[in-house]
Amino acid sequence: MLTYSLHTSSKIPLYEQLYQAIKTDILEGKLKANEKLPSKRNFSKHLGISVVTIETSYQQLQAEGLIYSLPKKGFFVAQIQVQRVKSEKRIRLVSDLKIRSENPKTKFNLGSNQINPETFPFATWSKLLRSVLNDNQEQLVEPSPSQGVLELRQAIASHLNAYRGMAVDPQQIVIGAGTDYLYLLLIQLLGPEKTVAIENPGYPKIKKIYEQFKVSYQFLPVQKDGIDLASLNKSTADIVHISPSHQFPTGAILPISKRYELLAWASQKKNRFIIEDDFDSEFRFGGKPLPSLQEIDHSDRVIYINTFSKSLVSTLRISYMILPPQLLPLFQERLDLYSNTVSNLEQYTLAKFIKDGYFEKHLNRMRLYYQRKRDDVLKNFKESSLSEHISIINSSSGLHFIIEMKTTIPEHTICQRALEQDLSLIPVSYFYHEENTLWSNCFIVNYSNIKSVDITNIISILENILQEK
Amino acid sequence: MLTYSLHTSSKIPLYEQLYQAIKTDILEGKLKANEKLPSKRNFSKHLGISVVTIETSYQQLQAEGLIYSLPKKGFFVAQIQVQRVKSEKRIRLVSDLKIRSENPKTKFNLGSNQINPETFPFATWSKLLRSVLNDNQEQLVEPSPSQGVLELRQAIASHLNAYRGMAVDPQQIVIGAGTDYLYLLLIQLLGPEKTVAIENPGYPKIKKIYEQFKVSYQFLPVQKDGIDLASLNKSTADIVHISPSHQFPTGAILPISKRYELLAWASQKKNRFIIEDDFDSEFRFGGKPLPSLQEIDHSDRVIYINTFSKSLVSTLRISYMILPPQLLPLFQERLDLYSNTVSNLEQYTLAKFIKDGYFEKHLNRMRLYYQRKRDDVLKNFKESSLSEHISIINSSSGLHFIIEMKTTIPEHTICQRALEQDLSLIPVSYFYHEENTLWSNCFIVNYSNIKSVDITNIISILENILQEK
Repeated sequence: MLTYSLHTSSKIPLYEQLYQAIKTDILEGKLKANEKLPSKRNFSKHLGISVVTIETSYQQLQAEGLIYSLPKKGFFVAQIQVQRVKSEKRIRLVSDLKIRSENPKTKFNLGSNQINPETFPFATWSKLLRSVLNDNQEQLVEPSPSQGVLELRQAIASHLNAYRGMAVDPQQIVIGAGTDYLYLLLIQLLGPEKTVAIENPGYPKIKKIYEQFKVSYQFLPVQKDGIDLASLNKSTADIVHISPSHQFPTGAILPISKRYELLAWASQKKNRFIIEDDFDSEFRFGGKPLPSLQEIDHSDRVIYINTFSKSLVSTLRISYMILPPQLLPLFQERLDLYSNTVSNLEQYTLAKFIKDGYFEKHLNRMRLYYQRKRDDVLKNFKESSLSEHISIINSSSGLHFIIEMKTTIPEHTICQRALEQDLSLIPVSYFYHEENTLWSNCFIVNYSNIKSVDITNIISILENILQEK
Repeated sequence: MLTYSLHTSSKIPLYEQLYQAIKTDILEGKLKANEKLPSKRNFSKHLGISVVTIETSYQQLQAEGLIYSLPKKGFFVAQIQVQRVKSEKRIRLVSDLKIRSENPKTKFNLGSNQINPETFPFATWSKLLRSVLNDNQEQLVEPSPSQGVLELRQAIASHLNAYRGMAVDPQQIVIGAGTDYLYLLLIQLLGPEKTVAIENPGYPKIKKIYEQFKVSYQFLPVQKDGIDLASLNKSTADIVHISPSHQFPTGAILPISKRYELLAWASQKKNRFIIEDDFDSEFRFGGKPLPSLQEIDHSDRVIYINTFSKSLVSTLRISYMILPPQLLPLFQERLDLYSNTVSNLEQYTLAKFIKDGYFEKHLNRMRLYYQRKRDDVLKNFKESSLSEHISIINSSSGLHFIIEMKTTIPEHTICQRALEQDLSLIPVSYFYHEENTLWSNCFIVNYSNIKSVDITNIISILENILQEK
């Protein structure tokens, strides 16, 4: 009979030792297919352990399909074709894997679009989290609707109404874990067979997401006043995906005449839609936020997207979109199956943050903070000798502006020289999907995270670069 | 000259009143395209307000593209083609929208797969949240890698090692806001042009997600011991998407011989992969958790998915997957662009929850809790007259089992009669994508949320149903 030495002093239970020993013998072929195993009673006597222990081992072996039982006959070894491959290969692969090298870290960086993390209102957030954890336990474990917790959608709708004058029904709002995720929902909602027009230059991410789902896309050149509508009219696109109020990277603002033209384009055919990504519209200086396309759309064609990444913190992972009413039945049909991607705890906490007035206070505080930063950078630029060599473009909105350098030095030389002096500089052309000559020698200045003490250094680096020939 | 009456006592700033008034006149056509606006100085005298106020209004109008300026000539009305559509239509649409009616709420429900919310460890979770908010502020605002916070991936890897004996490198782990989201990543990783084999019966959601991205799929009939491999070998599938250790809804367990056959199938061609969704594997009674396919895969073909929805709470929205090492370079190429979808705060809190041993304690507590519930339900079933009319199937794992009713009463009549007595009963056939005769008259018993006091009632309802002819 089968004999195994089991260790009663081991931390591993006896049943598991026995199960493991038999399993090894089966997988290594020592026990052959259809071979009968000892009866529980005999095996128990033979090994000097209880029948229950044998039974538990057999049960586990049977559950995994290593043995099978025949009524009144006992247990038999199952027929198993073990797949044998060298396993060293596998371990090597993980340790060989190269971690993608990030862009070199420089002392100064005009290209980073990180907001200053110190501005996050930790104390208030902690207080609200605690109160939600105390008061809303039942709601916290109740699955939220696919579109997100109603309280948060209501809070966002009221905020948009009070802050932007936008008339939005909470039913139109969909909460998602970041704007990328909302794009994935929209591909499903509108259908991957559609053709999308995207901005050139523009976010590489948007192009790549469409590409990965085999959605066809065409480029719309971005002019100094936003996308070129003649190109759109010539294209076969069904969907336009744009940031009309502060285009990335150019900062271009689509004027109202073009907005109406764009809406007219959309209303010409039944299935045309506009995806409006309004990612940093809260930060406009010296005036009101620009009215969104959503506000002037009377034919139900605009899908409006915004995020709390810029206005609060990106690691919160909360964005939202406003669907035109005509798309709501389709949302329910196609996307209602998804669980919402944001945890209830954070949805309720953000709802309270908005409802109790903290969000508006935070926005006002941040707008002043960014305005001061921007004014400081602009003032220093203007007062330096740089002012003769650069023009400043699109500085009234958003967290970055553009400088156009009046020089014959090629862009890549400028970037290279900057890097040698520890400054990361990103040209607009870096975001070209295809050539767009309007934006040569234009560079991004992301001022939101520049320290005051660094401005003079950055200016002299730029001066150096432009003086060399 | 243009005349507007402005209200100095209004809460709306003067510049905004003026801006609004001019805007309305432009959009309504009272001010014509290319008409010259008054000079700032003259307008200021005329309206009795400061030049700065006029300037701010003009700036806002210009930013929106309602007016344009010509150097040394002044400001002119832009040419705008306003899109005019009745706006009542829009409001009607929202209020008319039917909210999808949910399944009728019954007093007793054997079909709901909600876990009992009272089991969530609120006190511990609050404590850990507080400590993370105090100690990790810098990490909380620093964008996490696309795969998720390293601390959480390390904690999961150690847990899998200690609890399941799985050898996983944290580099292989990808955190995501729910299992649905991981499916969306996998479609992009493996490519939407692939053909996926899915279980029949199975989660309707999985089929629908593939459908929406136009991914082609084929069905694998689920037999009493899991998917039919003969069908797989006949299919043209590249990917198999299954739950081998506790199939939903049948509860079927794939025996080890079939597991090896499946792995052998995968290794036959270069681009074959297996998606293993191991959603409630933590809850196995009377033995160890079943070894996953991932553990015995030596050819790098298994993508393992698990979630904290069952083991902790679904509203946390945290799932993870383990990629085979060979797919890691492809992940970096295709999916590294995505921001992780789970907030840093919750990633760090869960990491601490696991690392400090709370998760394992919680799992052990919950396994006992569920085992008691299951035993209670099973015991009552067996001791009732029901026992002659039903067989219990697949009750050793997971949070539901199956009862097969030995009766000629059609399934829909059984469900209808149950509903009349306030009991929701869901047949396995409800989850058929196409006919599968093996599972007729089989019903789901989701015992995890049945209250002890309700068991007797549920049993007598079932007895009633089966006694009627």
